[in-house]
Amino acid sequence: MDRANALRALAMDAVEKAASGHPGAPMGLADLGEVLWREVLKHNPASPNWWDRDRLVLSNGHASMWLYGCLYLTGYDLHIDDLINFRQLGSKTAGHPEYGECPGVETTTGPLGQGFANAVGFALAEQMLGREFNTEDHQVIDHRTWVVVGDGCLMEGISHEAASLAGTLKLGKLIALYDDNNISIDGEVGPWFNEDVPARFEAYGWRVIRDVDGQDADAISAGLKLAVVSDGRPTLVCARTTIGYGSPNKAGKASAHGAALGSDEIARTRLALNWGSDPFVVPQNLLDEWCARDRGADLENEWNDRFDAYAQAYPELATELARRMEGKLPSGWNKPIRDFAKLTQAAINSGEKGVAAATRKSSQMCLKPLGEAVPELFGGSADLTGSNLTRWEGAADDRHMSFGVREFAMSAIGNGLVLHGGIRPFSGTFLVFMEYARNAVRLAALMQIPNIFVYTHDSVAVGEDGPTHQPIEQLTNLRTTPGLSTWRPCDTVESAVAWEAAVASKKAPHALIFSRQTTRPQARDEATFAAIARGGYVLVAEHGELGAVIMASGSEVELAVDAAVALTSEGIGVRVVSMPNPGLFLMQDQSYIDQVLPPAMRARVAVEAGHSAYWYRFVGLDGAVVGIDRFGVSAPGDEAMRAMGMTVERVIEAVHSIR
Amino acid sequence: MDRANALRALAMDAVEKAASGHPGAPMGLADLGEVLWREVLKHNPASPNWWDRDRLVLSNGHASMWLYGCLYLTGYDLHIDDLINFRQLGSKTAGHPEYGECPGVETTTGPLGQGFANAVGFALAEQMLGREFNTEDHQVIDHRTWVVVGDGCLMEGISHEAASLAGTLKLGKLIALYDDNNISIDGEVGPWFNEDVPARFEAYGWRVIRDVDGQDADAISAGLKLAVVSDGRPTLVCARTTIGYGSPNKAGKASAHGAALGSDEIARTRLALNWGSDPFVVPQNLLDEWCARDRGADLENEWNDRFDAYAQAYPELATELARRMEGKLPSGWNKPIRDFAKLTQAAINSGEKGVAAATRKSSQMCLKPLGEAVPELFGGSADLTGSNLTRWEGAADDRHMSFGVREFAMSAIGNGLVLHGGIRPFSGTFLVFMEYARNAVRLAALMQIPNIFVYTHDSVAVGEDGPTHQPIEQLTNLRTTPGLSTWRPCDTVESAVAWEAAVASKKAPHALIFSRQTTRPQARDEATFAAIARGGYVLVAEHGELGAVIMASGSEVELAVDAAVALTSEGIGVRVVSMPNPGLFLMQDQSYIDQVLPPAMRARVAVEAGHSAYWYRFVGLDGAVVGIDRFGVSAPGDEAMRAMGMTVERVIEAVHSIR
Repeated sequence: MDRANALRALAMDAVEKAASGHPGAPMGLADLGEVLWREVLKHNPASPNWWDRDRLVLSNGHASMWLYGCLYLTGYDLHIDDLINFRQLGSKTAGHPEYGECPGVETTTGPLGQGFANAVGFALAEQMLGREFNTEDHQVIDHRTWVVVGDGCLMEGISHEAASLAGTLKLGKLIALYDDNNISIDGEVGPWFNEDVPARFEAYGWRVIRDVDGQDADAISAGLKLAVVSDGRPTLVCARTTIGYGSPNKAGKASAHGAALGSDEIARTRLALNWGSDPFVVPQNLLDEWCARDRGADLENEWNDRFDAYAQAYPELATELARRMEGKLPSGWNKPIRDFAKLTQAAINSGEKGVAAATRKSSQMCLKPLGEAVPELFGGSADLTGSNLTRWEGAADDRHMSFGVREFAMSAIGNGLVLHGGIRPFSGTFLVFMEYARNAVRLAALMQIPNIFVYTHDSVAVGEDGPTHQPIEQLTNLRTTPGLSTWRPCDTVESAVAWEAAVASKKAPHALIFSRQTTRPQARDEATFAAIARGGYVLVAEHGELGAVIMASGSEVELAVDAAVALTSEGIGVRVVSMPNPGLFLMQDQSYIDQVLPPAMRARVAVEAGHSAYWYRFVGLDGAVVGIDRFGVSAPGDEAMRAMGMTVERVIEAVHSIR
Repeated sequence: MDRANALRALAMDAVEKAASGHPGAPMGLADLGEVLWREVLKHNPASPNWWDRDRLVLSNGHASMWLYGCLYLTGYDLHIDDLINFRQLGSKTAGHPEYGECPGVETTTGPLGQGFANAVGFALAEQMLGREFNTEDHQVIDHRTWVVVGDGCLMEGISHEAASLAGTLKLGKLIALYDDNNISIDGEVGPWFNEDVPARFEAYGWRVIRDVDGQDADAISAGLKLAVVSDGRPTLVCARTTIGYGSPNKAGKASAHGAALGSDEIARTRLALNWGSDPFVVPQNLLDEWCARDRGADLENEWNDRFDAYAQAYPELATELARRMEGKLPSGWNKPIRDFAKLTQAAINSGEKGVAAATRKSSQMCLKPLGEAVPELFGGSADLTGSNLTRWEGAADDRHMSFGVREFAMSAIGNGLVLHGGIRPFSGTFLVFMEYARNAVRLAALMQIPNIFVYTHDSVAVGEDGPTHQPIEQLTNLRTTPGLSTWRPCDTVESAVAWEAAVASKKAPHALIFSRQTTRPQARDEATFAAIARGGYVLVAEHGELGAVIMASGSEVELAVDAAVALTSEGIGVRVVSMPNPGLFLMQDQSYIDQVLPPAMRARVAVEAGHSAYWYRFVGLDGAVVGIDRFGVSAPGDEAMRAMGMTVERVIEAVHSIR
């Protein structure tokens, strides 16, 4: 109990010091933390990136002080000052756990339920890598994924998607610890959350360990000992806890959830817990008992020996596993995709037939050389495999997954796969249904992890499925997400450049946007071809004096080209700028930007089958945008495009209107 | 069987004619359709807006031909030509059912799972209105909500959120019909969806009627007869069906799901079903058997008598119910909120203390006069009631609901409440978690229904909770959603104007964005006060010659005002434009727009603690935006704002940089 109280006190004192935060859950979870981190978790505080460590995710991320406290007490590179500076500018201990800011934080959590789905991704990565790399006599990938979830996580829809899939996939090394404290922010949960959680998880094919007294270390220890003996199903451990445990007046109440207890109540809690130490002081004997550095070193050393034996017996597998866990791509991985792009460009330039394609098909063509060269590339689709074309020709069964109609879980599981290491996932759905998964895309961008999102059916050209399936505002949404790189290629060659950038990325996640309908391939010379990688470039130079610039992305590039031809015949020197990735274009040096879009040239028109707002930063007050600022219609795709004004005529008119 | 085959044939023939669509589910559901629409559903084809009709939602909206077929066959205002023109431009029969385009379509569906949540909203509205208006001897609100769901709907997370809540709320008149055909787009669902759906729903507190043979009219009839006898729980009827039933080669296969069967297979299906009629021809005897106009007239007449008796006994209740179901606001409803706004403005202008407030608090203050004047106003929060401040002082328990941590279901349930009629909901969460519910906001905008979304904690000023909780790109996302009206008020007075606009709206949904932190109230004369309603207006006029315009929204208006003061003292005539609703401002007549933002004045700066992209349409290539194009930080709110450059100094610098 003293050990748990050390954690409890750190949580309440840090929140009090910050005058902000969530003391209740860490206090309720303190006993579980003590047993889990000291007795059960396979980890080495000195080596937080050890490949075969257990992964632990705190899905109820507001309980961050629980995680920081456990990391500090077990001996991670976290100083007591880091806890004193909880929630302050520049501190390792952000309000919610932020991946990359603090050692031992496996993923950024806070948006509820997503950590749980990340954990499913961790466990899936472990399962996949184990199948690929373990041998009968060598188990070098053999760790568990632990995830702590609160009531809020289990109310969120994503918990359903992820749990249902985890049950189906038999992720036997996944263990969820349910902090069943019966309280959420609005109070006792009965009036809004009275489902039978254990029965629900059993319906998903999980094993459930019920009724563990979460304030009793022995009961917790017994429960976790049961949990680690897998029967092949994922396991849910239901721990009954008291939020704010120890606080005489706030324990078990919503008032312990999201605000400091207050100095008086903290004093009362110290008395009630018989905890005499000052704030942020943990007696040395307890620090010693908590310290997991020796145990961790032993665990990792044991594994190192195991890995050495494996490397002796299977040197190639060991080398390959190391490469993948270190996040290095195979040498020469991008030659095939570059060759494909160059050959395609040559075929286009020579006027060969058969090179026109829907860019979703282009994407699939790119996946073959990439998939063959990069064995960690792993695709999936939210039940639209044949529409997203995320499975490439010849892909083995273990290189692609049907996630079911679960966009959000799929995307968050992808984040977990990337975070685990060893797998480079991409996953597809229709662009408009990105919205179902939206916050997972944001978290990938926030964490700066190179997840890849494939979004097909990119505009009203989707056609008959109608406005529910026709994106309008989604491109802008992606492009305004900090740190996300968004490509909307106009043809197969741009698609190949986009795909290469996505796979090459070490940090930025990528959104790759593809068309349902066939687009016209564009001829390019060598310099133009090379400029695609800058995100925006002069695709067609003006004849004579520059009279106007038309910029476009994706399937609208051909409208821009056709309008330019017509305007050129009128004697206007029109330049066509292809903008497959305007955000990347804006990151180029200013001289390049000014070369493509001369500052003095104000006769600028942007064309895109999506909302116009984003393009005004390129066309300004004197230019025009041919976009779609309303919802689409159900009609064949070409008719829908015409009905929305996406025509060459309208582009020509726009140029006339602003000259 | 002939009756069902009529529906089956219409579905396969319409999809064939359109060469686009989903024949499989309608064919599998044909027998259920026939029993449900003819025997069980309380509806009157001649009167699709009858208040006490049963509501039927096709959550698997891709099966739209099932709905259109049933509507046509039972006698709604739908001509056979409408079916022949399935999925064509301007037709009533869009690819997915579109609310407002076709009589009998209760809600727009297609984005999976949302129709199910809409149905929970319908059933909740019925429950609430029944409790409010029914008397012991008069049941004038007494109808059921039916919702057809497919495997895809049940995989989606929102199905969990909505079902769990429906079980908790004991929505006994909600009946879900599960089209259990074991197929989704990627094939037989086993590898990605093998949960025990009945057990899952029982865990939610639903009654489950299992194993109904969905191809056997007698079994269906027996199942539905059980279903309509409520035991107080919502009911799930599991109907085993065969996708594409009747097609010799495609029945039971994914190939029947989302593409026309093809003329050969259709010929074979005609033979197999012994269906001799030509495409789009239904024999008159079958049309007669399907026709529900007489039955519907009887049902409605019976209810009319019931309502007349009620109106005799309780004339005031009847009048009030009629007002609410007709969507008319009480006369004089907006006087109290206007008075509140005027009094507040007067207090500000006279320099009274205590009028500064966080705009979330302003919002709560507005809710009191609105809530008291508009009894149909009904609030809720996704477990952030005390943070969103969606419950007003004195609100009765039945005027506000805790939805639990279920942003998506809450928003889609709100759509259902609006669609049902009689309730005007608003619901709150943090702005950043709008993303969890994003597609429901889009559907409200697409349907043009006046749902109200309250989003608090609107910027990095959220502070310590850190970047996961700090919106950046969300404002732009909302503002680029066609048909959505988005307000971000700077003080209590602008908040009141925003709230009045939201409640007054007959069609456009509103997003109301409020701050966590205190904002400074702004003085205004009468004309300035009146101009708030235009979405953008001159808050502070320039001294002397106009030298620059600074525009801002929300909490950044005070930065603009302070910068203007400083710049004025430098001799620059700075105008401050407050832009609480830039989309609305853009809808004003051009002369007003040009008056506020003179076209020749290019020294324009926009200030907002959010992504800059949206503002370039106002500042152009020669202006500047002081925005935040990166993720935030965990730190106290004022420090976070400074760290992100949201300072008066930076605004002043920006003005200098562009003059």
